[in-house]
Amino acid sequence: MASTDKPDHRESIKSEEALAAPPRRSNYFSVHVALRVLLFAASVTAVVVMVTAKQTEIVPVPVFPFRAPLEAKFSDSPAFIYFISALSVAGLYGILTTLVSIVLKPAHETRFLLHFALLDVLMLGIVASATGAAGGVAYIGLKGNSHVGWVKVCNVYDKFCQHVGSSIAVALFASVLLVLFTMLSVFSIYRKIPK
Amino acid sequence: MASTDKPDHRESIKSEEALAAPPRRSNYFSVHVALRVLLFAASVTAVVVMVTAKQTEIVPVPVFPFRAPLEAKFSDSPAFIYFISALSVAGLYGILTTLVSIVLKPAHETRFLLHFALLDVLMLGIVASATGAAGGVAYIGLKGNSHVGWVKVCNVYDKFCQHVGSSIAVALFASVLLVLFTMLSVFSIYRKIPK
Repeated sequence: MASTDKPDHRESIKSEEALAAPPRRSNYFSVHVALRVLLFAASVTAVVVMVTAKQTEIVPVPVFPFRAPLEAKFSDSPAFIYFISALSVAGLYGILTTLVSIVLKPAHETRFLLHFALLDVLMLGIVASATGAAGGVAYIGLKGNSHVGWVKVCNVYDKFCQHVGSSIAVALFASVLLVLFTMLSVFSIYRKIPK
Repeated sequence: MASTDKPDHRESIKSEEALAAPPRRSNYFSVHVALRVLLFAASVTAVVVMVTAKQTEIVPVPVFPFRAPLEAKFSDSPAFIYFISALSVAGLYGILTTLVSIVLKPAHETRFLLHFALLDVLMLGIVASATGAAGGVAYIGLKGNSHVGWVKVCNVYDKFCQHVGSSIAVALFASVLLVLFTMLSVFSIYRKIPK
């Protein structure tokens, strides 16, 4: 009898507490929202900087013995297109989750923390791989690769490379933010387990 | 009195047994261990396939009007070196966490799930970015980039490219495993919150 009584008693205490005081937001709430706004800002910055990375230089054309103006832009490389797609999705995700966090009722917080943690992990995978892909290609642009005869282009397209480099740095920051998010969500869920 | 005492006595013994029984492992435990062994296997496979990707072909040398044997190997590209480092760390992490999961006392499970989730997120970031970087470089090797005059090399070094491609595919699988891990850890922690 005692074993069945105890949970009932706890239940009644819990429901009384719930009726007496409305559930409060956890301490991490404001940090959560601030980080999500930062993710949105970082993603939008990375996308804008990458899209505006355009530079036209007069370079020797290999086919003719002439020099012609040639424009470097992000759409020249599939890796940069993937980068922009991924960071756009991350920016959208950042602003949507910020709004959801703000309008969220504190009573539903735990369940939403779970959903946020699961989605954050997915977004982290996408943003980290996009940053890696763009970084790998940008590094070849910066240093070239003498083994396969890929020439470096950053000595000619200096401004373009500065834009690309800055954009990748901001995306790296966004990836770190996503790691922090997920850790914070996991920790917030962990703290709700009674010790 | 004796007839009513007896059942009470039994009840109390039962509840004592329930209190004395050690905490059991969660249902997800075996899935956890299996996934971690898979991560180890996938990481080691990716590293071995990438390291053994060596091919020597006789190609025209740009400086002289001669043809010379030239070897393609993973260390020609910094992205592939980063890839191997990251996947080696992931393999080590996989085998270490498998061992820890097996020797772990069920009573400490929740705390270790938290630590695992936090570390899994970090590993996911590393493995996903390495896969992205290697994928970005391998794609240039496969298709070339006519905008900047980077020639494709996979028409000559076919076996090398097959190795690299397979290795990246296995690493992608390892990334997906890490996403699943983290989700499973988060969900296991969430389930321990009393409803």
